[in-house]
Amino acid sequence: MSGRRQFLRRAVLLTGGAATSFPAARAVAQDGAAGPPAVPPWSKSLGAPVLASPYGVPSKFETNIRRRESPGLTRTAHSSVSFTPLQNLFGIITPSGLHFERHHAGVPEIDPHAHRLMIHGLCRNPRIFTMDDLLRFPSVSRIHFIECGANTGMEWANVAVPTVQYTHGMIGCSEWTGVLLSTLLDEVGFDPKAKFLLAEGADGAALTRTIAMSMALDDVIVVYGQNGEMLRPEQGYPLRLLVPGVQGVSSVKWLRRIEIGDQPWNTREESLHYIDMLPGGKHRQYTWIQEAKSVITAPSGGQVILDRGFHEITGLAWSGRGKVRRVDVSTDGGRNWRTARLQAPVHTKALTRFRIDWQWDGGAALLQSRVIDETGYVQPTYRQLREVRGTRSIYHNNAIQTWRVDPSGDVSNVHVI
Amino acid sequence: MSGRRQFLRRAVLLTGGAATSFPAARAVAQDGAAGPPAVPPWSKSLGAPVLASPYGVPSKFETNIRRRESPGLTRTAHSSVSFTPLQNLFGIITPSGLHFERHHAGVPEIDPHAHRLMIHGLCRNPRIFTMDDLLRFPSVSRIHFIECGANTGMEWANVAVPTVQYTHGMIGCSEWTGVLLSTLLDEVGFDPKAKFLLAEGADGAALTRTIAMSMALDDVIVVYGQNGEMLRPEQGYPLRLLVPGVQGVSSVKWLRRIEIGDQPWNTREESLHYIDMLPGGKHRQYTWIQEAKSVITAPSGGQVILDRGFHEITGLAWSGRGKVRRVDVSTDGGRNWRTARLQAPVHTKALTRFRIDWQWDGGAALLQSRVIDETGYVQPTYRQLREVRGTRSIYHNNAIQTWRVDPSGDVSNVHVI
Repeated sequence: MSGRRQFLRRAVLLTGGAATSFPAARAVAQDGAAGPPAVPPWSKSLGAPVLASPYGVPSKFETNIRRRESPGLTRTAHSSVSFTPLQNLFGIITPSGLHFERHHAGVPEIDPHAHRLMIHGLCRNPRIFTMDDLLRFPSVSRIHFIECGANTGMEWANVAVPTVQYTHGMIGCSEWTGVLLSTLLDEVGFDPKAKFLLAEGADGAALTRTIAMSMALDDVIVVYGQNGEMLRPEQGYPLRLLVPGVQGVSSVKWLRRIEIGDQPWNTREESLHYIDMLPGGKHRQYTWIQEAKSVITAPSGGQVILDRGFHEITGLAWSGRGKVRRVDVSTDGGRNWRTARLQAPVHTKALTRFRIDWQWDGGAALLQSRVIDETGYVQPTYRQLREVRGTRSIYHNNAIQTWRVDPSGDVSNVHVI
Repeated sequence: MSGRRQFLRRAVLLTGGAATSFPAARAVAQDGAAGPPAVPPWSKSLGAPVLASPYGVPSKFETNIRRRESPGLTRTAHSSVSFTPLQNLFGIITPSGLHFERHHAGVPEIDPHAHRLMIHGLCRNPRIFTMDDLLRFPSVSRIHFIECGANTGMEWANVAVPTVQYTHGMIGCSEWTGVLLSTLLDEVGFDPKAKFLLAEGADGAALTRTIAMSMALDDVIVVYGQNGEMLRPEQGYPLRLLVPGVQGVSSVKWLRRIEIGDQPWNTREESLHYIDMLPGGKHRQYTWIQEAKSVITAPSGGQVILDRGFHEITGLAWSGRGKVRRVDVSTDGGRNWRTARLQAPVHTKALTRFRIDWQWDGGAALLQSRVIDETGYVQPTYRQLREVRGTRSIYHNNAIQTWRVDPSGDVSNVHVI
């Protein structure tokens, strides 16, 4: 409780000694003169029976909180993206029903009894596994994020899309369950000469990506479970790869084949797409790791701050290289920084929720967050990022995000260079 | 990776030196004679477009995995229970759509804009809070279990219900988000003489429970978020109490009122119900804490083991007093025990997943798990529990559960005294 009291003291200091800085709620007269609140109708009737929803769904008052497409972003709905409503979420777990989607040929409807995973190539005992086979192997459950390499991609060209759902919503974080890929590679007796794997999806795109053997033997998981249950169809049901810390396209969904080899495959999705354009016409390939990044999710673009006084600023931070060490928050566009509280425990290669108190005085403000990961890497400004990367990229934009608060309370997306 | 290799070595020892003990998968001839697997139809067509489900749902192949009622257990569907399918779940997070339900007057449909929380009684500044007020307070997100006090209640009388869904399915574990109750109690200026609170729900039952002030000032949360989004209606939307480690009925759903007082209220739900019948006609009241308990969820009652050889035994352990320290597993009805692996990190007052390898030799087996929590408390056998508690209880059955494996592979619920 000492942490909370410390917070209260700090809040009092910030407001110049006011007794409390929290939102004013309606007072109740101690003598009952103001009376108790009216008894609402739902306290005077029977509600819905048990099992009204054998598989539960959100309240009808929450239907506005859903995944959304960015109009005009892609040409077809089968090779497209839907974005997670980060502005409405709490904690670090993304509800599976709101986890962003990215498909190259739509969502296949796969019969798990007919699904197979083949592992072959440079190994002694190539194998074809059924789902029943895989469910019998020793399993692990771990909390990790998946971020599309193109997340925040529209901001490279100063297209300030309006909300955090569209700027940063190609990310989700789940408790994933499956078999360590290293267990299966041991099972097929991989050749020590092997340096790379090719993972292939069973969707119509037969999406293929090269995975480094060093990652495969470290923390890559062949996943069948997400947030306690079987994967959702749009997340790869019944089987996907999870390459922690690496851009989402490598976590191949609907996984049907892993080939063991000794060099990268240079497939379509790693030569024409998912490359980084650099100044001078060069490009970078196989830039896998999602570097440390953070964003304030509330208050954020499109929201309106209705009252002056106390508000909790909150957001998410992550790093493809390990754990988040610290998050700093500025309310004046980066001139002054304060250190935020981190939700514990901090998981490696997972979303980390940060929170910090703020007294809004009704003036203009520029809200920013900046993460430092356990390697000491500091999230860059747009100026720093562009010095190295130019402005023609699509992928791997991890620059500091700025939300402008107007005296009206309106919050919007602005670029602070 | 060393942990996994250690596991492999152990498996090899158990099978007397066989090269591998994992399930036999179909071999692929290195020269390609056996050929690759047939290309499935879903690899040759477009799948569903993005946003086919703006709010995602499980695969149609998983519709059998759902909450279920125990026929005849209650007289009406408005004061009833649905059970979580623990046998099908992974990790420690319970999907919100599969979290058990327990209602006393059905599920009210509450408009969050009209919902209020009143805090009054022994305090200087009684208050009525709107949801908007509460969402502005400093927040926390924590992973905790909620277990109904009556979970496993049918087993007291040797009614061996068939599956773990019915024996232990009145439990769930979520990442909960809300305001620490202590923050709100500070806000209303609670009287130091206050020793107890009364929490009241806005449902038709106006369910009321006494909460000890010591708990309220420790880790009780006024919750609006579950697993990243707003609470589901059947979990108390838009507001509930969470009293970590305490029987579920105290975590009052649809929370509308907290009264601060100096003695327990002795309400209907704490005098006629939720009491423990003891031998000799006495009863215990206000037995709140859910003591340490564990259960194997797979293999478990109603499942069938199809093949001899390697299987992973897995299950869940928890303690209302803090963290799980250790889980032991027996396959011979408690004569010999081995220590299971625990999913990390272990959270306080949360489900903890355990896993252990097992070679089934095709003979009869009696599977048991036994948890030890951080206080040193050891989960009791039925014999030990009945010596103290008799057999006329409904609540707080935390005895060791036994699953019998027949040579046929059928797994069933048996009582080992």
